Parts: sequence; C-alpha cells; structure tokens
Amino acid sequence: MIGLDNLSTLPPKDAAKAESKEKLRQLRKELFQLQNKFYADGRFSMLIILQGLDASGKDGTIRHAFSSMNPQGVQVKSFKKPTADEVQHDFLWRIYPHFPTKGMIKVFNRSHYEDILVPKVYNSLKKEVLKHRINLINELEHHLQANNTVIVKFYLHISAEEQIKRTDDRKTKPHKRWKYSKEDELIPSQWDDYRDAYQSILNNCNQLPWHIIPADKRWYRNYAVAKILTDHLENLKLEYPNA
Amino acid sequence: MIGLDNLSTLPPKDAAKAESKEKLRQLRKELFQLQNKFYADGRFSMLIILQGLDASGKDGTIRHAFSSMNPQGVQVKSFKKPTADEVQHDFLWRIYPHFPTKGMIKVFNRSHYEDILVPKVYNSLKKEVLKHRINLINELEHHLQANNTVIVKFYLHISAEEQIKRTDDRKTKPHKRWKYSKEDELIPSQWDDYRDAYQSILNNCNQLPWHIIPADKRWYRNYAVAKILTDHLENLKLEYPNA
Repeated sequence: MIGLDNLSTLPPKDAAKAESKEKLRQLRKELFQLQNKFYADGRFSMLIILQGLDASGKDGTIRHAFSSMNPQGVQVKSFKKPTADEVQHDFLWRIYPHFPTKGMIKVFNRSHYEDILVPKVYNSLKKEVLKHRINLINELEHHLQANNTVIVKFYLHISAEEQIKRTDDRKTKPHKRWKYSKEDELIPSQWDDYRDAYQSILNNCNQLPWHIIPADKRWYRNYAVAKILTDHLENLKLEYPNA
Repeated sequence: MIGLDNLSTLPPKDAAKAESKEKLRQLRKELFQLQNKFYADGRFSMLIILQGLDASGKDGTIRHAFSSMNPQGVQVKSFKKPTADEVQHDFLWRIYPHFPTKGMIKVFNRSHYEDILVPKVYNSLKKEVLKHRINLINELEHHLQANNTVIVKFYLHISAEEQIKRTDDRKTKPHKRWKYSKEDELIPSQWDDYRDAYQSILNNCNQLPWHIIPADKRWYRNYAVAKILTDHLENLKLEYPNA
C-alpha cells in the first residue's frame, strides 16, 4: 500500500541542484536523439500520463523535461474540465481518439484518471461506478500495452505548503498572473480529499506502475522525469530500420 | 515575378557556418521564451506553412529550428497523400480542423498548397479549377489573418543537384534508410515540373508573402527559418496578461 504521507516531496539527500541541472541538459540532448530513433523505429507508440495536484508542476514538467524533442514526434494533449458535449458520453469517449500512433510520443496533461479523481473528491459517483471505472482503466492500459504502446505514468508529489506558495505566486508574480483562476482559492481546503483520492488511484491502478516524483523542487522534478523517460526509451533497444 | 532559377539555393556570401550555428543556439533559447509568452498572451494564433521539394529539408527544419519550444504550445501536422476518405471531400475539408487555436503555434508540414502543386505537376485538373483553388486559398489566408492568425510561409529552395544527393543518401546512410520510398526514384525526372508549379504558387498566392529560404546548406536553412520566426514573434509585442 502506498501512503503518500510517508513519501517525501523533497529531493533525495544525495541530489544536488547544480549537478541535476547539468544532468538535465545532457538528458535533453539524449532525448533529442532517442526520440528521433523512436520515430524512425516505428514499432512502438508511447503514452506519458502526467498527473498531480493543482500547481504540482505538470505544465512546467512538459516545458522543461519534454521540450528538447522534435514536435513532429511529440504531441501534448491537455484534458480540461469536460465540455457540455463530452459529459453526454462515457468518460473514455474524449480520451480514446488521442492515443498515439506508432512512432509517436503522446503526453497526456491530466488524463482518464481525472474521471476517478474528481468524482471521488466531490463524492458525485456511487462506489460501484468508481470501481467499474478503475477496472476499465486497468483493462484499457493492459490492452494498449499489448498493442505496443509503452505507458509511462508520473504522479508529481508536492506538499501542501508548496502548493499554497505556488498558487500565491499566481497572484503576485507578473509572469504567472495569467495562470490564476478563481478556483485556486479552493485549493487549500481540498488538500486532504485530493491526497486520499490520489492514494486510491496509486493503489488501485498500478498494474502498470506509477513513478511518484518528489516535486517540491522544480530542478529535481525536471531531472527525475527526464531521467525516467530516457531510461524507458533506452530499454526499448531502438533501431533505425531498413527501408 | 519570382523566377526560382534566379534565386540562389546557397547561403548569402556573408553567412558563416560556425557563426550561424551559434546564432541558432541563441535563437532557440529566445524561441523557448517567446513561445511561452505567445501562449500566455493568448491574443494570436500562428500558422507556419512549410513547403518545398522532396528532400528539401522540411522534417529537418522542424527538428532543428522548432524543437526548442514547449510541445504543449507547438503542434505539427503533416499532410500526406490524401486518403480514400479525404479525396471524397473538397480539398480544404482535411485542412480546416487543424488551424490553430489562440495561443498555439501550428506547423503545417506540407499544406493546402499540395492541392495546387500536385494537380499542376500531373496535369490532373482543369485550369479554371486550379484558378479557383488559388483564389480560395488567398481568401482563406486573408480570413485567418483577420482572425488574429499570424501566417508565416516558408519555401525551402534547393538545387536539383542537392536534391539528388539527398535522395541518394537515403539509400546509403543507415540512419536515413527508413526515409526511402520507391517514389524517390521519380524525383530527378520531375524537377522542372515541380519548379514550375512552385513558381506559379509563389507568384499567385503571395498576398501573404513567402519566405524563400536558400536550403542547400542545412546550417543556413535552420538559422534563417529560426531567425524569421523569432522576428515575427518579437514584432507582436507580446505581453503576460493579468488574470
């Protein structure tokens, strides 16, 4: 059982800022090359799922850990609050068209996991329905994997204090102000509910494992995510194929 | 009147390789920042149209000039040979859904211009129909511009000799072999037809101007494209808005 309260939101003791930043620079270069080979190889597709509390740094991770790669082979799909049209369908209807084709890396900024998370926090669905969604997602990820989709799941783990600090920054820092929304005011009061909901997801949808990233420090978060992605790509033993 | 034969495919005399590569490194950093501001600003969308003969370096340009930016704000759409379904519609049917939303930069790797180009080379459409398509594209680009879409059009200009050299590389270089297709064999015999067809496009669809990039040298091509894109973004006087 994963207990989020027992997992640090801070970098491991042996991680140093300057060194991690330098390593990230190297990893970005490796990712530039690896992604090209992944595209050329064409045997796999990759689905990166990025989840985390509000202000945990999902956008920043995409910007810093994934931005060295060729945008022709890397696509980001952000899932926002479902539209009036989307809620008229089952919860996977808006997700399915965005799964990656062979050779492509797709980043889901939020994902189908929101459809467990939000109903759990707002207590808006019966337990059986939630259970059904959990099973369905497990089956779906298994099915994608069987079709050569490499699934890499990240949970960005930040502390309540850091979350409050970052949402406050949105009010005060000129280059962050555009990110502020009125709903940010609710964030502190919902901390416990979201932690519980995430714990349930991390424990029930873990047939394909989650990478839980200590995310209070951006420099470590970016390095850790880039490193895990690089390892996944290297493990595939990619090749430039013949014509 | 633009005459392609009078335009050099080589870098200008005062351009130097090492210096251009260093400038590109700087431009990539600027683009990383400018794109973030473009996204936050949210007043404009940007459509980058990339055209050029086979092997003129469209893919390479995307990889080297556009890959420093956040993939959350930059999307690439490649238009290949129309599918069986697509040819059952008017030529803009498959294009229209891909125009960028506000804040987004969309790169068209090939575009609606293929629907003038290919019929012209294969002589498969009546002159009046081609004329109609030209008018429609001019109107459409004007319409998009009036809706705050900044349109930046690039034509990558390479010589017949360089084109042959590059398609030969696809047969011999292990990391290029996956790009080879049987149709590459046709390329030399179609050189004149494609040049003529492009000349017609550059002269008839120029209400929004084309940037004709000397593209025989990759280092100059990448620098020139990144420089033009940077200038376009800087000219917009982008701002981080209030909440």
